[in-house]
Amino acid sequence: MRSHRTARRYLALIEYDGTAYYGFQRQRKSQPTIQGEIERALTRLTNQTIPVTGSGRTDRGVHATGQVISFAIEWQHGTETLQRALNANLPVDIVVLQLDVVDSNFHPRFDAKSRAYKYYIYNQTNRSPLYGRYTWHVRKPLNIDKMNMAATALIGTHDFATFGTPPQGNSTTRTLLNAHWSWQDKLLVFDIEANAFLYRMVRSIVGSLKLVGDETWTIDEFEAAFKACDRDQCGTVAPPQGLYLTSVKYGETSDQ
Amino acid sequence: MRSHRTARRYLALIEYDGTAYYGFQRQRKSQPTIQGEIERALTRLTNQTIPVTGSGRTDRGVHATGQVISFAIEWQHGTETLQRALNANLPVDIVVLQLDVVDSNFHPRFDAKSRAYKYYIYNQTNRSPLYGRYTWHVRKPLNIDKMNMAATALIGTHDFATFGTPPQGNSTTRTLLNAHWSWQDKLLVFDIEANAFLYRMVRSIVGSLKLVGDETWTIDEFEAAFKACDRDQCGTVAPPQGLYLTSVKYGETSDQ
Repeated sequence: MRSHRTARRYLALIEYDGTAYYGFQRQRKSQPTIQGEIERALTRLTNQTIPVTGSGRTDRGVHATGQVISFAIEWQHGTETLQRALNANLPVDIVVLQLDVVDSNFHPRFDAKSRAYKYYIYNQTNRSPLYGRYTWHVRKPLNIDKMNMAATALIGTHDFATFGTPPQGNSTTRTLLNAHWSWQDKLLVFDIEANAFLYRMVRSIVGSLKLVGDETWTIDEFEAAFKACDRDQCGTVAPPQGLYLTSVKYGETSDQ
Repeated sequence: MRSHRTARRYLALIEYDGTAYYGFQRQRKSQPTIQGEIERALTRLTNQTIPVTGSGRTDRGVHATGQVISFAIEWQHGTETLQRALNANLPVDIVVLQLDVVDSNFHPRFDAKSRAYKYYIYNQTNRSPLYGRYTWHVRKPLNIDKMNMAATALIGTHDFATFGTPPQGNSTTRTLLNAHWSWQDKLLVFDIEANAFLYRMVRSIVGSLKLVGDETWTIDEFEAAFKACDRDQCGTVAPPQGLYLTSVKYGETSDQ
């Protein structure tokens, strides 16, 4: 085994179509994951086992346009060459968009200041051949104004126990910076940003706000469920194919 | 065989993902086509052979968000029921977005006043897992200003022989109403509208304008190729997966 003295730490901005994967995180079984594919590509390039860390996990079937990962390897050539070599060794549904050398202490999860996601609902009576794979198809017309009014209650620092379980530790308190719906042609797009998210949190919020949008719930009922801090009070959990991790923000020195 | 006396003519607005199809038009062989799938669904519903006509053909691999088709059938139930029955019998990559009864003389191709297409170029160094299936990936940065300057020469009534072959008759003269590039995040989107198009015309124009965008051609060279009215002077022909038929316009009584 070679010395790690010359290893450098890299930060990679990656995009993936999560359709074929069992989520970001490496699994014990042979199920394909994003982390597993990137580690496999790194092993092909270096003949070593290189652990990859991510800014956070994404669930099975969830996509990313701006996931941030990090790894440390010995590499004799330029960063651009490494990026090209990685992309040549990754499946077509995963790509390294950007690659940079970072401080050896950088950690994509612990150093992240906030994460942003988008969720797309195709809100039309008929299914869509072109959007179907990448959105949640909701037939009933949704009332975006009510969904936005309900969403404002989420902004700020709150206990989000209704909308998810914590990935580590026991705190279910998170700080939500943005939660807003907008129309984009036939799509309802939800932009949400927080310092960090609980498991299934975005999909649980989207599924519950959808109940406000189709008038199954009043805004008061949504707020009561939220304030109950009880996972059982969550509405439906939206399906994974409409969800995209779009960006991760860091401190001033390594802003994404 | 039942009498056609009670047959009504329908206009359908359809969307499809063309990836798996050998174009719109029915083939003699068993290759799947959009027209073939719709006719098969109609036969399942009526036990009759129902010919479908379209506003125009789209090539193998080309998509549509607003293709217009028409057919005449005897149908005892409501239009909404027919639309649901059709969608239940169509593959997931084809859908009837809207269905209406029209005048029995309506013809989706002959009555069309204009057609509009969009073409999407993913203009980034790296490939995209999420856009790859539905765009043309061009790595070299394209100069949108030059592409737009060159495109203005196309507006109006001209001989477009450089950019395509006529689908019927011998005239290669067409009237272009719009040809404009814009940025949409990482995508370059081309909007083009004409009274009618020659075979491969949009893809030939896009491929030639791309040569202006990457500075292989000057604007003058583009115009010289256009004015030559010679198919051999065309630049590259852009691939089909970036092309979408978005709308077909009719007279005032049946506007789409």
